[in-house]
Formats: sequence, C-alpha cells, structure tokens
Amino acid sequence: MDAEIKGAQRAVEAHLDHVLAPFGTSDVAEAMRHATRGGKRLRACLVLQSAKLHGVSEAQAIWPATAIEAMHAYSLVHDDLPCMDDDDARRGQPTVHVKWDEMTAVLTGDALQALAFQLAAHPEAGSAEVRADLALSLARAAGAQGMVLGQALDMAAERPGAALDLEQISALQAGKTGALFEWSAGSGARMAGADPGPMIRYAAAMGQAFQIHDDVIDVTGDAASAGKAVGKDAAAGKATFVSLLGLDGARARAEALVDEADAALSPYGEGADPLRRIARFAISRDN
Amino acid sequence: MDAEIKGAQRAVEAHLDHVLAPFGTSDVAEAMRHATRGGKRLRACLVLQSAKLHGVSEAQAIWPATAIEAMHAYSLVHDDLPCMDDDDARRGQPTVHVKWDEMTAVLTGDALQALAFQLAAHPEAGSAEVRADLALSLARAAGAQGMVLGQALDMAAERPGAALDLEQISALQAGKTGALFEWSAGSGARMAGADPGPMIRYAAAMGQAFQIHDDVIDVTGDAASAGKAVGKDAAAGKATFVSLLGLDGARARAEALVDEADAALSPYGEGADPLRRIARFAISRDN
Repeated sequence: MDAEIKGAQRAVEAHLDHVLAPFGTSDVAEAMRHATRGGKRLRACLVLQSAKLHGVSEAQAIWPATAIEAMHAYSLVHDDLPCMDDDDARRGQPTVHVKWDEMTAVLTGDALQALAFQLAAHPEAGSAEVRADLALSLARAAGAQGMVLGQALDMAAERPGAALDLEQISALQAGKTGALFEWSAGSGARMAGADPGPMIRYAAAMGQAFQIHDDVIDVTGDAASAGKAVGKDAAAGKATFVSLLGLDGARARAEALVDEADAALSPYGEGADPLRRIARFAISRDN
Repeated sequence: MDAEIKGAQRAVEAHLDHVLAPFGTSDVAEAMRHATRGGKRLRACLVLQSAKLHGVSEAQAIWPATAIEAMHAYSLVHDDLPCMDDDDARRGQPTVHVKWDEMTAVLTGDALQALAFQLAAHPEAGSAEVRADLALSLARAAGAQGMVLGQALDMAAERPGAALDLEQISALQAGKTGALFEWSAGSGARMAGADPGPMIRYAAAMGQAFQIHDDVIDVTGDAASAGKAVGKDAAAGKATFVSLLGLDGARARAEALVDEADAALSPYGEGADPLRRIARFAISRDN
C-alpha cells in the first residue's frame, strides 16, 4: 500500500511544481503552492492506479491526478474559512486565511478550482473525447449536485437543532467526499474509453468508509498526528457516523464498506489489488 | 444594438432556467438563480454574435454563452464578499451574502464556477475537440493567470499607499475584465474551428474601453441607474483611468479603443457590424 501512496505523492508534488511554476510569486500563486502541498494524495493515487489498471500511462494520468488534488485543495481552503469551518491548521500548517488573509483564501480557492479544469482538459491528458469527458464529469462532481452540495449539507448539519439521521449523513458525505473519489477512480476507465461503472461503485463504498474513519479519527485521534483539530464534531454536538452508530458500530460499518469496495472490483481480478489495499488504508490511517 | 443585447438576455435567461432546474431549492441553488439573474449579458452577447459571424448555430452557442455568464456571476458573488469589495447591492438586488450569508455566498460562487465548466463542456456545445478547447481556454481565462490574477491585483490596488500607474491598471483590467471578454468573443471562432485571433484583439480593446467606461460611471453615474454603489473608487482614493487621465482623457481613450476594436474586425467586413455596435454600447451605457 505504502508504495502506491508514496509513488502518487512524489509524482503529484513534482507535477504540481511544474504546472505552478509559470504562475509567478504573487500571494495567490504562493498560497496555491502552500495549499496544494502535503496531504495523503489518496485521490491522485486512485486516478493513477485506476489508469494503470486500464492500461493508461502515468504520463497521461498525472494530469487528472493533479487536477483532482487541485480541486480537493480548493475545497479545503474554502472549507477552512472563518465563515465555514473556521480552521487554523491543515496538514500541520497554518490555513491560507491565517497565513495570508481571507481575501487571499477566497481567491486562492477560486484559482485552484480553475486550475483543476485546466489540468483535466490539458492537451496531454488524452484525446479530445477524453479531455471533454474528464472536464464535464469533473464539473458535475465538483458542483452544486456534487461536492458543493455536500459542503452545503455539512454546514446546515452544524446549525443548532439540526439532527441528521444516518441516511442524511450518508447523502452529505456522498457529495462532500464521494463525488471526487468516484471521479478519481472512474477517470482511468474514462481515459481508456471503458465503462467507469465498477470503479465508481468501488469508490462510492470506499469513500464512505473513508469518511466514517474520519469521524473515528475525530474521536480517537490526536491533533498532532491528524495534522488538524480533532474532537470538533463532538464538541459541536454534531451528528456523525460515530455518534449515530457508536465507535464499534462505525468501525464495523467501515469494514463492511471496504468489503463492498473489494467486491465491486471483482471484474478486474488480482490486477485491482493495489486499489483493494488503498481501501484498507482508508480505514487504518491516523490522519 | 438593443436587439442583439435583448436577444442575448432572453436566450440566456431561458437557458439558465433550464439548466438550473435540476438543482432543486436548496439555499445554494436559489442563490445561484439569484446571482445569475439580470445583468447586461454583454459577455453572452459576444459569444452569440461571434458564433453567428462564424456560422455556428445559437442552439450550440447558448452553452458557452451561458457558461461565461455563470463564470461572471461567480466572480461578482465572491467579489462582493465582506473580505473583498464588501458590497451590499448588485444589479439593483441585495448581494448573496446579504440576502443569505457569507458561507452561502462562498459556496454559491464555487458552484457557479463549476457550472460554467459543466456548460462549456456540455455534449451539445459541439464536437469533443470544441468542448475540450472551450473548457481549457475558459480555465486559463478564469484562473490565476487571468481573471483571478486581475482580482488579486485589484485588491492590492486598494491597499493604502498603492498608487498604480496606467500600465499597472491596464494589466489589472486585462485580467479582471479582459480575459472573459476575450474568451467570449473568441468562442465563436473556436466553435467553428477558426483562428480566434482577430476576435480576441477586438475583445481586448473593447474590454478595456468597457472598463474605462466603468470608471467614468463611477464618477458621473448615480446608484439608481447603475444598480450598485458609485463613487467608491474616488472615496477610497483608488487610482482609476479617470483619476489618471481625467474625465475627458478617459472618455477619449475609450473612444480610441473602440476604434481599435472596430479595426480588429476588418477581416470580417460588414458582417461584424453587430459586434461593432456592442463596442459602441460598451462606452455609452449608464450601468
């Protein structure tokens, strides 16, 4: 598992350095570098492994892999804003609005979203059919029926008196985390002109397991290894998978979802073992 | 002139209603409708007229026309935020963070940017080559080397002690307004597989004339007809084309730029007269 993740991390860091070089040294450009640095690169890893499984070269797949990390980074920069989650630390570093200011954080997130599309539609990402398909599906995954919808539901869940049930939390997470995971895993199939269906089913189950594990970390983890504040949801009285299922129940559900993710990969046989390991990693990480 | 603008307005309103219908009635979805309502639709009009000039149908061109209006609307929603320009009114209506809250405004802008790419890459926008080209060029125009760069320079210009010269203001406006104008005018050529060069030169000159006229309105206009606060730049001691060139000098420069825009259209002959009228309109409007 570590080999795939570390490989993705190296490839993404190098490619981001390359694509961000022409942006100069303005505050926004520097904040774009700051916000895209570090992180697990799980989404990029999904893109790269999905591409490999479908016989697509890393030279081609690095474009959507970097695109999805830029998209993810934008969502974190905006999510950390005072009017949203109001977080001071992310990946063990000060958040953009703390290191610079709110204005820079808004613009940096905006620029990173545009960058995501610039990378997904890049001429080296594949044929025109592939690039148009990647850009369109990424827009759908990121927008008000995907990630932004999840973010909005998440913010509503933090309002006093909001008491979400399991179905509502699952819907929230399907948008907030699932949409980008599904796009990542599906992109290798898209690049090969294959049906992304099985990969999307894998990522949907895996993404939910990932999110349940996030809730587990929020209860059992410490800020130092998590690289961000923990215990926030409980302190805010916010419904989570853990508050609804209990710690053991949440862990059991995450396990069951990883089994489901495994099963979705059956058409691919052993070739999909790296993706199976990524799903296991999603529920064993400490940050 | 009025006919082209009014036609664009009707077509864009109807198409936005259509594409926003599936988004439901969440705060973000309602705020997306609020933020995309009204406006001159000058950018959409450029797309539609550029398409017509290149023999591209309106049924196809309405996709990039609506895309650029979604992109423009997102930039206004974020630009109006308290940490940016802190504006309460826009197009004669309360801004999104005033009518809802800041969180909703951040998410609404984010969702509108994603929508812009969803529309530009839409299957009905043309061949895969066209859609990939539209998405890529739109990302470049919108991002940290285009519109966001212009916004960042604009914010820096408002810091105490910043005294921009004409060249710096022109660079700022080339990003803030020019990039989307150039994309709009170029898109008809892109859709036809033609060289967008002359259209981009037209839009660069026209966009700068438009922006100079904005500065003129800020000095000579009233809030009622402008639909937003006026006199803000002078009150803030911000350098503008008017403060640097004087009112008459600014008007003369805008005229000269419209002549330049005219000249850029010479390869197209009389067929480009609607675009020439749009350039004239850009420096005669009162809002």
